[in-house]
Amino acid sequence: MQVELVSVGTELLLGQIVDTNAAFLAAKLSELGVNVYHKTTVGDNAERLAAALRISLGRSDVVLATGGLGPTEDDITAAAVAQAMGVGLVQDEEASEKIRSFARARGVKLLDSLLKQAWVPDGAEVVPNPVGTAPGFLISRGSATVIALPGVPTEMRAMAEQTVFPYLAAQAAREGAAVIVSRVLRLAGMGESQAEAEISDLIRAQTNPTIAPLAKTHEVFLRLTARAPNRAAAVKLIQPVEAEIRRRLADHVYGADDESLEAVVGNMLRTAGRTLAVAESCTGGLIGHRLTSVPGSSDYFLASLATYSNESKVDLLAVPQETIREHGAVSAETAAAMAAGVRRATGADIGLSVTGIAGPEGGTPAKPVGLVYAARTDADGTVTEELRLRGDRLMIKERAAQTALYLLYRGLKALRTAEVAK
Amino acid sequence: MQVELVSVGTELLLGQIVDTNAAFLAAKLSELGVNVYHKTTVGDNAERLAAALRISLGRSDVVLATGGLGPTEDDITAAAVAQAMGVGLVQDEEASEKIRSFARARGVKLLDSLLKQAWVPDGAEVVPNPVGTAPGFLISRGSATVIALPGVPTEMRAMAEQTVFPYLAAQAAREGAAVIVSRVLRLAGMGESQAEAEISDLIRAQTNPTIAPLAKTHEVFLRLTARAPNRAAAVKLIQPVEAEIRRRLADHVYGADDESLEAVVGNMLRTAGRTLAVAESCTGGLIGHRLTSVPGSSDYFLASLATYSNESKVDLLAVPQETIREHGAVSAETAAAMAAGVRRATGADIGLSVTGIAGPEGGTPAKPVGLVYAARTDADGTVTEELRLRGDRLMIKERAAQTALYLLYRGLKALRTAEVAK
Repeated sequence: MQVELVSVGTELLLGQIVDTNAAFLAAKLSELGVNVYHKTTVGDNAERLAAALRISLGRSDVVLATGGLGPTEDDITAAAVAQAMGVGLVQDEEASEKIRSFARARGVKLLDSLLKQAWVPDGAEVVPNPVGTAPGFLISRGSATVIALPGVPTEMRAMAEQTVFPYLAAQAAREGAAVIVSRVLRLAGMGESQAEAEISDLIRAQTNPTIAPLAKTHEVFLRLTARAPNRAAAVKLIQPVEAEIRRRLADHVYGADDESLEAVVGNMLRTAGRTLAVAESCTGGLIGHRLTSVPGSSDYFLASLATYSNESKVDLLAVPQETIREHGAVSAETAAAMAAGVRRATGADIGLSVTGIAGPEGGTPAKPVGLVYAARTDADGTVTEELRLRGDRLMIKERAAQTALYLLYRGLKALRTAEVAK
Repeated sequence: MQVELVSVGTELLLGQIVDTNAAFLAAKLSELGVNVYHKTTVGDNAERLAAALRISLGRSDVVLATGGLGPTEDDITAAAVAQAMGVGLVQDEEASEKIRSFARARGVKLLDSLLKQAWVPDGAEVVPNPVGTAPGFLISRGSATVIALPGVPTEMRAMAEQTVFPYLAAQAAREGAAVIVSRVLRLAGMGESQAEAEISDLIRAQTNPTIAPLAKTHEVFLRLTARAPNRAAAVKLIQPVEAEIRRRLADHVYGADDESLEAVVGNMLRTAGRTLAVAESCTGGLIGHRLTSVPGSSDYFLASLATYSNESKVDLLAVPQETIREHGAVSAETAAAMAAGVRRATGADIGLSVTGIAGPEGGTPAKPVGLVYAARTDADGTVTEELRLRGDRLMIKERAAQTALYLLYRGLKALRTAEVAK
């Protein structure tokens, strides 16, 4: 079964709001095994909406429309659906009565505009609204079905959960539709092209699950999407492919689905019973911000010192003045001294640091914008890393923070391996 | 002129990402006086995309497509546009050369997939990508024009600003389109309802410009939107309304349009010749991250110490142990000691601090989640502030950071007033 999403609202076309309704519906529909191949947004114009509905009904089994069901003049969805389906509008008695009793209960005047919400296309069933007055509706004519819901997210979601998803799930099951399960593998320390090159044979050969790489600002996602008669069967299809990808990409796969790198290293720190302190320069506090966005991070995170000036590196982290003079503030030597300094200053088990040139100013031919050094130090020694990152100031900050967290991740991984081996 | 937006990406139809690109483009296009009546989303399927492009070109002058221009197999936009326009694909020499030199500079292997990005529809002009390797393109055949940009937001935005908006603005101006000018006033220290109450008569009376409040996570925007034959006339309509709003809301209006609070306080610090250091607890480094996201912030920003543990507050900021024992780490007294401590440790002119409970754990009846203290200290003394913020962990962090920056803003504003009075 193919469902098409139609979002109605001029404010969407003016970019004044972002269409989160469509993302919510799309995510749920794919879980139900419903195919969504198109999503259309139209403004509050009855003719254009009716024309768009006719195109949608020509290529999809069900059109799921959101928005344009409110009390104002520019709420035109019911009229446009009626026009596209070739029927008139009728007043739904139950919906009218609900609006009347709502007005009575609140002591508000029963405006015609309120009652307008009870008009639905002739032959439609009302979709009840458990959290508001504007009802939705569902109308089928021949092979064409339109479902219309209000655009207010809380109302739309409640109505979708209560009525629309069960209806579509039953339809999909009757047709023997497959469910779709997605699994996202999260990669660090590797670009999109490189990741794809390592598994291009898998990407080409696989149809179920499919494998799709997706580049984010500071990491790469690989999305595995399987289709099967039920969830368990879909998960079983994903498992061997995931295992093969993990075998090839090894430590580059740091987590899956919603696991952020800061949450993963947080868990590893807690399990290992190690504490962490960070010394930041070009990232300005971003690493600390990310680490502390994980609930419970005070268990292992002691402090992050964003030392932006040379003096603060010397005074707060005891970076030797000679190190900065000889090698510069952006150097492997300074990064190592920063990591050692913050470890000493806080008594943390592990010190992590990053220093670099975020730009747009401050670059030289020898040390261009994007040059970044990270260091990790613990009782066993110090590891430094040099990177040349691209992007604008914010991107370089984000990529530098990721570089440092990934350096920490590899250290914790090696620690775990070493402890298991003991 | 009518422009239609086409977003390409199966991840959009699966609801795995929200389409912020379309909202960004729609907002800018409306400012240029370009009508956007439709927005369509299609997955990574060349045939469905070509079919959708044909529908779009049948009803709009220009199709602006985003996504599907990367190096991977499922990046199919160039091929689909070529198909819809009835032309072949050709390799653009300049774009190929750029990719080759990128690969050389980075020492990465020149994969075929990288070079695939240089193939564009025959007859297309390349839209340069200042921040990445994937170029976009623009192709006109008869009355039909398609512009294609990558889906990575930073790349898409840079290319749109540099090439696409100027091109469309020139086209729109040639057709004598009315321009729409928006001005956003940015408020701090005031909620949406309160702001609306102060200017409700203006909101009701105004039709040109319209005034629309918009609540963001940690601030409130007021958007003034005027329509006029040209930009100067629209600006003239906005000016008196903006002046009246500023008169009523006074210091709550800290900036306009793209001016972030961190950029505004940065300029004030530079002008005043003052340096700043920050001590953070619940924000974990977010204040430092925000301040250092402003280019040139090293002129006035010395350091931010995110002291998450009590020990680090004592050891690094010299917060007296008795203060923490008597009043708690989340208290006005500790906030004041943190601000004083970071000022002393760094030699900064101004010390700023924040401490609070971000949750979800750690709250008590006396000190609930969302309780936040901020402090600002300088040669003239110390000011502290207590807030009770709502929201999840990230929202509380963001609102706490804003609270501290707004406390800094008011101090710098008073300083400026005092210096002018001298």
